[in-house]
Amino acid sequence: MSMAMVHPSVHPIEAPPMTEHAIAIAMPRHTLKDTQGMPGTLGGFLLRFAQFSFALVSLSVMATTSDFPSVTAFRYLVAAVSLQSLWSLSLGVADMYAILVRRGYRNVRIVRLFSIGDGITSTLTFSAACASAGITVLIGNDLNDCAQNHCSRFETATAMAFMSWFAASPSFILNFWTLASK
Amino acid sequence: MSMAMVHPSVHPIEAPPMTEHAIAIAMPRHTLKDTQGMPGTLGGFLLRFAQFSFALVSLSVMATTSDFPSVTAFRYLVAAVSLQSLWSLSLGVADMYAILVRRGYRNVRIVRLFSIGDGITSTLTFSAACASAGITVLIGNDLNDCAQNHCSRFETATAMAFMSWFAASPSFILNFWTLASK
Repeated sequence: MSMAMVHPSVHPIEAPPMTEHAIAIAMPRHTLKDTQGMPGTLGGFLLRFAQFSFALVSLSVMATTSDFPSVTAFRYLVAAVSLQSLWSLSLGVADMYAILVRRGYRNVRIVRLFSIGDGITSTLTFSAACASAGITVLIGNDLNDCAQNHCSRFETATAMAFMSWFAASPSFILNFWTLASK
Repeated sequence: MSMAMVHPSVHPIEAPPMTEHAIAIAMPRHTLKDTQGMPGTLGGFLLRFAQFSFALVSLSVMATTSDFPSVTAFRYLVAAVSLQSLWSLSLGVADMYAILVRRGYRNVRIVRLFSIGDGITSTLTFSAACASAGITVLIGNDLNDCAQNHCSRFETATAMAFMSWFAASPSFILNFWTLASK
């Protein structure tokens, strides 16, 4: 209850101070539940950080091999992992901002945008990781040609891309589930 | 209210006649909405049929090449596409049965089981298609070695596996969305 109710009514009428409850009613944007891993939470930020780190390591390791441009799938991996790292970095910065100003992204439109973006980037990363894995196994196991190729670097880059996809999946599934169950 | 309440109590107690409303209450299994594409609908059956056909064509085309066992990714494609065709065939038969007896699979547990199975088989099919695509492009574009290899058959098998995944995605997304929004 506000203290303004106690004052006698001869005073000019003031706007009552906004209580926590009144603020929550005044903001209809906050319609989604606040689960850990959602945009704007610490769990969401940690997921973005993991996605970004794994994608960046994958990119760096693949870029240090001199012969990756000769294989289409490796060029595709570099492109997909670059996109994933940029997307995760921007959403990680947005999460950090939301944590600092103590607001959540519980607007349905924003969560839908995040969900579509997550779906596209994680599918691209997964397909690139699968294509690179197929070629890495072809070079290493089927052709036994590791002497002329950077097998261990190809394997590391592929594994890191898969890890980035693993970290991206919970973000996508949580956002999609939240949208469907709203 | 049942009509049995109106009869005098000297008569032996009979079971009240089941009305449409009473049947709906007596069957708590029917808790999900009946959307086209869901298990037990004609749309669902057509999706299963498409998944099964594309997977079967992919399997047949890949199996007719003599040298597919020498590449790990092609062996993996054959395995994934076999699993997809078996899964889609069984669910297609289940859909056909449900259509014939005019019942839907609106039980939450069954839809959850279907959704998990769809998620696993479609992810396997997609990863196998991506790995095969990487190797097909490596042989055809990067190495220009189509004279010694069955490039067109590899391409056909890969494309059919992707089509099977395209047909499997709506089943999975619909089931997942239904589960989340129930």
